[in-house]
Amino acid sequence: MNPFTNNPRESVAAWGEEKLITTIRRWLGTASPRAPFGIGDDCAVLAPSRGRQLITVDPVIYGRHFDDAIAPRAAAEKLLKRNLSDLAAMGGQPVAAVLALALDARTKLRWLEQFYRGLAACARRHRVAIVGGDIAQSSGNLAASLTLLGSATGPRIVTRRGACRGDAIFVTGVLGGSLRSGHHFRFTPRLAEGRWLARQREVRAMMDVSDGLAKDLRALTPRAAAPAIDAAALPLRAGCDVRAALTDGEDYELVFALARSTDRDGFLRRWRRAFPRTRLSCIGRFASAKDFPSGALNLADYHGYEHLR
Amino acid sequence: MNPFTNNPRESVAAWGEEKLITTIRRWLGTASPRAPFGIGDDCAVLAPSRGRQLITVDPVIYGRHFDDAIAPRAAAEKLLKRNLSDLAAMGGQPVAAVLALALDARTKLRWLEQFYRGLAACARRHRVAIVGGDIAQSSGNLAASLTLLGSATGPRIVTRRGACRGDAIFVTGVLGGSLRSGHHFRFTPRLAEGRWLARQREVRAMMDVSDGLAKDLRALTPRAAAPAIDAAALPLRAGCDVRAALTDGEDYELVFALARSTDRDGFLRRWRRAFPRTRLSCIGRFASAKDFPSGALNLADYHGYEHLR
Repeated sequence: MNPFTNNPRESVAAWGEEKLITTIRRWLGTASPRAPFGIGDDCAVLAPSRGRQLITVDPVIYGRHFDDAIAPRAAAEKLLKRNLSDLAAMGGQPVAAVLALALDARTKLRWLEQFYRGLAACARRHRVAIVGGDIAQSSGNLAASLTLLGSATGPRIVTRRGACRGDAIFVTGVLGGSLRSGHHFRFTPRLAEGRWLARQREVRAMMDVSDGLAKDLRALTPRAAAPAIDAAALPLRAGCDVRAALTDGEDYELVFALARSTDRDGFLRRWRRAFPRTRLSCIGRFASAKDFPSGALNLADYHGYEHLR
Repeated sequence: MNPFTNNPRESVAAWGEEKLITTIRRWLGTASPRAPFGIGDDCAVLAPSRGRQLITVDPVIYGRHFDDAIAPRAAAEKLLKRNLSDLAAMGGQPVAAVLALALDARTKLRWLEQFYRGLAACARRHRVAIVGGDIAQSSGNLAASLTLLGSATGPRIVTRRGACRGDAIFVTGVLGGSLRSGHHFRFTPRLAEGRWLARQREVRAMMDVSDGLAKDLRALTPRAAAPAIDAAALPLRAGCDVRAALTDGEDYELVFALARSTDRDGFLRRWRRAFPRTRLSCIGRFASAKDFPSGALNLADYHGYEHLR
């Protein structure tokens, strides 16, 4: 749906701020607690955290992350799920979110209603409270930025740092063709998998794959090493080749380093017991220049999604 | 400074994302902790909160909240301080913030550097850690949205609800002419005052004045009452009339309800001891229709800033 209309009676300008906010609270329904724990005061009040917390922020922007072909509900789901995927990558559990909208006064009320209803449905599914937000006017634009607060679920938070030379590289799901296949708004963030992986001591480092594996893996790679990827082991989405899997981006899968010394068969057995329906692939290892396998892919030949280029 | 340039070598497009993020971390300096406690991982890790937390989000948008006449440093300060003012209104203390930027690829690197350096300076002054963020491309636009996390400092969080008929209405500072005078980017958020006020049991409800007192007071007004404002008691900024004080907006002052039974002289003495340099004015009370003073202003005749109109 195109988000804009030239009919003022169908646009947000018809209502003004106060009526809009009242209505948004209705659209969000039980996904948004009552003030002061939700929308309606200067800040939202949150309960004390039990342990360490995690925070992340990601937007969806019209013309960039979604377009007229995407239903507003799906755009909203994508917004929340992108952030949930970041949380999954550190083994966290979602708690609360705030939403900042910058929109043209010509934005359709119908578009906005669908967007908020989609956000609410997704938030309820993942037990995220939408506790606050802001709506500001921005000419010719529609951008939504969501800040997600989560909690660490175990004694350990897995970061991008910690992989060692020799560690195996694993990835969940399949890669490539996310935009073409609609995966970029239909995906399920790997929250349960992320929490489980964070509890396994053998998992040394983890992140989500959002800009394409070739680019993202750079952040996980230890010093004096390079990812030696076995092309045949890459889990390709139907219709995708190796280049697509490495560079398309928006996969929202988890990639992690498994300690070299791990009993890999035992690990995979435990994984399949926990996640019988989530594919897990060992796609290579972090190798030094000396022992870099001759048949492995050189990721320097591939470029993931580069922002602001 | 105009934020955009047609010279690609002077714009963010010259660097691309990775170099930009490395540089932003340098610009932020000590205002941004190291990953995973700051920028550089999928989420930022925050220490457990000691008590209840507060969260708020507010943007600054080019052409709306700042323009070419405003230095980028001042735009960034305004962004953080707007959010700090919301926190002040509930008696909170700032902890951490994340920043979402949506910008045109033509954005000047020099503009961006000044913006981040301004944000960092203001964050250090108020002890806010800039723990994360996101930069996304948005054609022809420049919007920055900041989410601020704070902590409740006392046993009580003051909300907008709680005022009773008969309670006196107080406001800090002076009102009106914020845009004309430059107050909208030079103001100091009333954090210390807000914390102090939240500790006084006689303060029943509080909020910050951002859209103009006439509009904002509606949220503080108890049922079956109206604010009876004494025009002569309104603290006017030099050159402002009553209408300006009630409707200009962007005052970033605190307005609160003081319980009717309070020893007002004692309260004012304690205030002056705590804040000898912050003006405090009693501007009226919440009155019922029956005892509405004949000389009081009827705020229905005044309209504060209406968004999306």
